[in-house]
Amino acid sequence: MTTGTIGIIGGTGPEGRGLATRFARAGLEVILGSRTVERGIEAGREVAAVTGGAVKGGRNLDAATAEIVILTIPYEGLRDTLQPLEAQIGERIVISTIVPMQFKEGRPSMTATQTGSAAEDVQILLPQAQVVGAFQTLAARKLADPGVQLEGDVIVCSDHPSAAREVMELAELIGLRGVNAGPLSNSHYVEGITALLVSVNRIHRKETGIKIVGI
Amino acid sequence: MTTGTIGIIGGTGPEGRGLATRFARAGLEVILGSRTVERGIEAGREVAAVTGGAVKGGRNLDAATAEIVILTIPYEGLRDTLQPLEAQIGERIVISTIVPMQFKEGRPSMTATQTGSAAEDVQILLPQAQVVGAFQTLAARKLADPGVQLEGDVIVCSDHPSAAREVMELAELIGLRGVNAGPLSNSHYVEGITALLVSVNRIHRKETGIKIVGI
Repeated sequence: MTTGTIGIIGGTGPEGRGLATRFARAGLEVILGSRTVERGIEAGREVAAVTGGAVKGGRNLDAATAEIVILTIPYEGLRDTLQPLEAQIGERIVISTIVPMQFKEGRPSMTATQTGSAAEDVQILLPQAQVVGAFQTLAARKLADPGVQLEGDVIVCSDHPSAAREVMELAELIGLRGVNAGPLSNSHYVEGITALLVSVNRIHRKETGIKIVGI
Repeated sequence: MTTGTIGIIGGTGPEGRGLATRFARAGLEVILGSRTVERGIEAGREVAAVTGGAVKGGRNLDAATAEIVILTIPYEGLRDTLQPLEAQIGERIVISTIVPMQFKEGRPSMTATQTGSAAEDVQILLPQAQVVGAFQTLAARKLADPGVQLEGDVIVCSDHPSAAREVMELAELIGLRGVNAGPLSNSHYVEGITALLVSVNRIHRKETGIKIVGI
């Protein structure tokens, strides 16, 4: 594992702050990116204060300078956010945690994507990047609370095997098992699991995750 | 739990025999149905011999007389199999274990359905029945081997709450937890999980299942 810096694009929301919290506590440097530099800096300060870790904040372009880039933006903002970052991101490993979901009368359902999954859409928008779908099924609130022992697997899908391996090691750094689940196109099913878990959470009033058994 | 008889439509394949094995060992009567009466009778005799349980075989129409009906037919045969059984099935609880999957160059992917999931298609074909999507994510070979301790959850989706509860109790009878995962339309995601697990199984050379954590 050669990775020292994690950049989180759209990192000021619950998912981005949650992942930043865990990676900072694992000893990695984290750059939280935002559309507005002030919000990024503020979120970085807050997560640094909670974790005592090396967390900075800035613009999304600052986060894109990190060794590994994580996307925690809403699906709707994908194109507008990524196009200006394409040159900076280059061939970096890019982790899509995005779930293209909408709520109709309170019921979650998937939004149609260009390719079948948000992760594959990211690969289209960043053709040089090593895109990996992962971390979609983790509960944001549990990530953000360092006192909570995380549960569940990180299901990893990518067409770039070495990038998939690095992401599985990242998962292990925060105490979770990474499971190689094949090509990037399988992200379609993983993103669907998240929509299912949102239903399960509403029914059972819990924040749930998923684990693959028998392996 | 008032259920004593389980009928399995298309029950002579691995999934049907596997479920029959587990339910017979749990003390339920099982009727294994087939398109041809001879194959049904033979499969029934074989499962009865392995389990020492009350397993009979016959035609699919015989299986449709049971209190709860389980479908383990391929998606492609759905309409032709169910239409002649509609009157007999009536308002019974019908469990769809069906995953609409195809293999292209060895890679699994989902087949397009009429409604979004095989389970919802079953509800269209059997409008009076209480359709429940469940048991899709269990490994058939492990079901059929009574020496193997089953793992993983039975994720239960239905628009008929009392039917969903009965199916969760059925799951518990064979040592598994049933998890209420909301409306029948959520079967779309559960069927997708099975396609994902088929990929995971190929990569890791294991028979895997899925468990919801945090609940």
